[in-house]
Amino acid sequence: MSFRDDGHAAVEWAASYLERVRELPVLAQVRPGELRSRLPPSAPDAPEPFADVLRDLEEVVLPAVTHWQHPRFFAYFATTAAEPAILAELLAATLNQVAFIWRTSPAATELEQVALAWLAELLGLPPGWHGHVEDTASTSTLAALAAARELRPDARAVVCSEHAHASVDKAARLLGLEVRKVPVDEAFRLRADAVDLDGACAAVATVGTTSTTSVDPVAVLAERCEAAGAWLHVDAAYAGAAMVCPEFRWAWEGIERADSVVVNAHKWLATPMDCSCLWTRRPDALRAAFSLVPEYLRTTDEVEVNLSDYGPALGRRFRALKLWAVLRCLGREGLQATIREHVRLAALFEEWVRAEPGWQVAAPRPFSVVCFRRAASDEENAAILERVNASGEAFLSHTVLDGRYVLRLAIGSYRTTEDDVRRAWDVLRAAV
Amino acid sequence: MSFRDDGHAAVEWAASYLERVRELPVLAQVRPGELRSRLPPSAPDAPEPFADVLRDLEEVVLPAVTHWQHPRFFAYFATTAAEPAILAELLAATLNQVAFIWRTSPAATELEQVALAWLAELLGLPPGWHGHVEDTASTSTLAALAAARELRPDARAVVCSEHAHASVDKAARLLGLEVRKVPVDEAFRLRADAVDLDGACAAVATVGTTSTTSVDPVAVLAERCEAAGAWLHVDAAYAGAAMVCPEFRWAWEGIERADSVVVNAHKWLATPMDCSCLWTRRPDALRAAFSLVPEYLRTTDEVEVNLSDYGPALGRRFRALKLWAVLRCLGREGLQATIREHVRLAALFEEWVRAEPGWQVAAPRPFSVVCFRRAASDEENAAILERVNASGEAFLSHTVLDGRYVLRLAIGSYRTTEDDVRRAWDVLRAAV
Repeated sequence: MSFRDDGHAAVEWAASYLERVRELPVLAQVRPGELRSRLPPSAPDAPEPFADVLRDLEEVVLPAVTHWQHPRFFAYFATTAAEPAILAELLAATLNQVAFIWRTSPAATELEQVALAWLAELLGLPPGWHGHVEDTASTSTLAALAAARELRPDARAVVCSEHAHASVDKAARLLGLEVRKVPVDEAFRLRADAVDLDGACAAVATVGTTSTTSVDPVAVLAERCEAAGAWLHVDAAYAGAAMVCPEFRWAWEGIERADSVVVNAHKWLATPMDCSCLWTRRPDALRAAFSLVPEYLRTTDEVEVNLSDYGPALGRRFRALKLWAVLRCLGREGLQATIREHVRLAALFEEWVRAEPGWQVAAPRPFSVVCFRRAASDEENAAILERVNASGEAFLSHTVLDGRYVLRLAIGSYRTTEDDVRRAWDVLRAAV
Repeated sequence: MSFRDDGHAAVEWAASYLERVRELPVLAQVRPGELRSRLPPSAPDAPEPFADVLRDLEEVVLPAVTHWQHPRFFAYFATTAAEPAILAELLAATLNQVAFIWRTSPAATELEQVALAWLAELLGLPPGWHGHVEDTASTSTLAALAAARELRPDARAVVCSEHAHASVDKAARLLGLEVRKVPVDEAFRLRADAVDLDGACAAVATVGTTSTTSVDPVAVLAERCEAAGAWLHVDAAYAGAAMVCPEFRWAWEGIERADSVVVNAHKWLATPMDCSCLWTRRPDALRAAFSLVPEYLRTTDEVEVNLSDYGPALGRRFRALKLWAVLRCLGREGLQATIREHVRLAALFEEWVRAEPGWQVAAPRPFSVVCFRRAASDEENAAILERVNASGEAFLSHTVLDGRYVLRLAIGSYRTTEDDVRRAWDVLRAAV
């Protein structure tokens, strides 16, 4: 078989998968180790045809897939890999760019700058900020905090809310920084009055926390950070996407005074893993933290930017291609329409919960995630979740708020319809 | 257009690209900023068809691509994205797995374990080591050194040769460790007699350094590290691939006593960026450095492994799929045959250089990289390189050895033939 034939077969498989994903159980219905036990213990000696890989993907691997592309995937932060971006990944792998310095891929370097400038404008970020792509928000936040530490090597604390993402802890541990957790108010927002920036090199404001998508007061924190000489990093990994709609920009008012901000295009901007967008108005600090130019990477090119100077990795994949494809093939209008539809669906679900005796909304809902629970014990709520997920009809996750077990319904798939949300609600009520 | 139609068009473009890449100039012949200036300043408001993206990829982006898939790409470490792996990236993006814990993708989690166990066996690594994939060797080395620091928080130095990769410096800077550089011998190998492990939490042995692919003495360092209670990390990012051939395993004799080892499948194992394979015999130390389980990630699954516990990132892409495709579609025999052919071609090129008056071999050649120079000034050598790269006929890079400017010819593309190497040599001689 030729690459052409194998390629067309792969596209047919991909198209067929996307057509039938709605019929598959959302959460993989396998036991730990089950896939491993079905695979040979060693690689083959002789080459096998690609058709065999495709066959085993269908027969052996697929049952172990949790379907993130399923329209009733409502766990964590639901995502989408939009079709143009899927194909862009094929093209990126075909070109196999390794963009550690400009000359090794002018295309990947400059398209990344362009795509991030486009996206910055769509989100209402100030013009002129440096932007680049990291694999995940964990790495983006690590890079931002490394820059902060570089500027204030004497200040060894990072301040964030107790609802900040665990990636802040992970980055701080790597960097040898102490994390100072600030309590939240009744809406799970960082309490600015409880912030102490003494000895802190940075604060992290979260716009859209993981548990409830609550929104920390960015403007107040920006002012406090400026006064204290601390770096303000804004973790908008999920909710940053909503800023394509001007009506949500209240959520990061003051963003122009932040030092860095991360928005994951692979969360709510239809881009497949991995595409975490990091912007900063202080690129010099990132370069100071990361730039190292050994002899074997020196060139005479007169370039403004080698993107590996701004983060922990040297090798860089052509991730910008898929983001560029999404921004073009959805356009501002397409992105706005889907964000608005998701928020509308979440609001609808929230209404249903409020209207139904025996159920409660557990947190304010700024965007497309609803936190709710059955008015019953934690065990009963956990059991409901277990039953729903085991049914394969929908997949939700949970969190704990004020010591109580809470269910989360996160809408973020571009394939989710009102019918899908209604079906999830039916399954939830039937699981009581 | 449907996803199916767009997909088939994308496959046709990819197939046509691979058929004609040999005719394109290897190094992009554009000036900095040229691509950027040809793209609109903003994303479109309305959606555009994918066909327009594909057209612009061809007309606007392609001239800014440095062709890593070109058979006469001889710079840095030459690589290949093999056809089955390219298609696997399409499939991975279609499934869009986000494998931060087992249940979010049993498939990605277990296939990664299987593929790394297969590859470990192919390389002759001891059975039973934990293996997982990071994006790049920079991250793999960061993870290994974080584990080392975790075990010896009081010991703040990392020992490596002066020819170790800059990623060691980058990781150490992030981790707040001091790098202690050890001089090399006449063959650019770390001098074990000059090693001082006092106060060191780790040493890094390089098997295949970036400049010359020299090989540090792993067994001696392992013994020294054991005695000193320091972690031994082996950076075999490039040359580790050669271990699929038993005749090269002298190069990491003693590897079973190392604590961790990194081999980049995206360098010499035909896998597209990014696929850096990290193995360790001490997974507990990696978990101690990285594991954090917030409430929203707790499950009742009885799993042995959540791969995000072993490295800096939380979100994990389905990278194992492409590695699995490569191991199956090339097989042990296919991998061995290409490695051996590359080493044969490098040996041939080395002979030509030795036989030609006015040229010199500048370093021993353990694998598929030849370091050489014109017996002339550094400026003259730099000018030769400039002329060759500007011709578009071949792309080489350089390094500095013992204070002299040296050219490097790195063979690693599965598409490179003897004719390609001969043509590079012709172009080099014509550029004098």
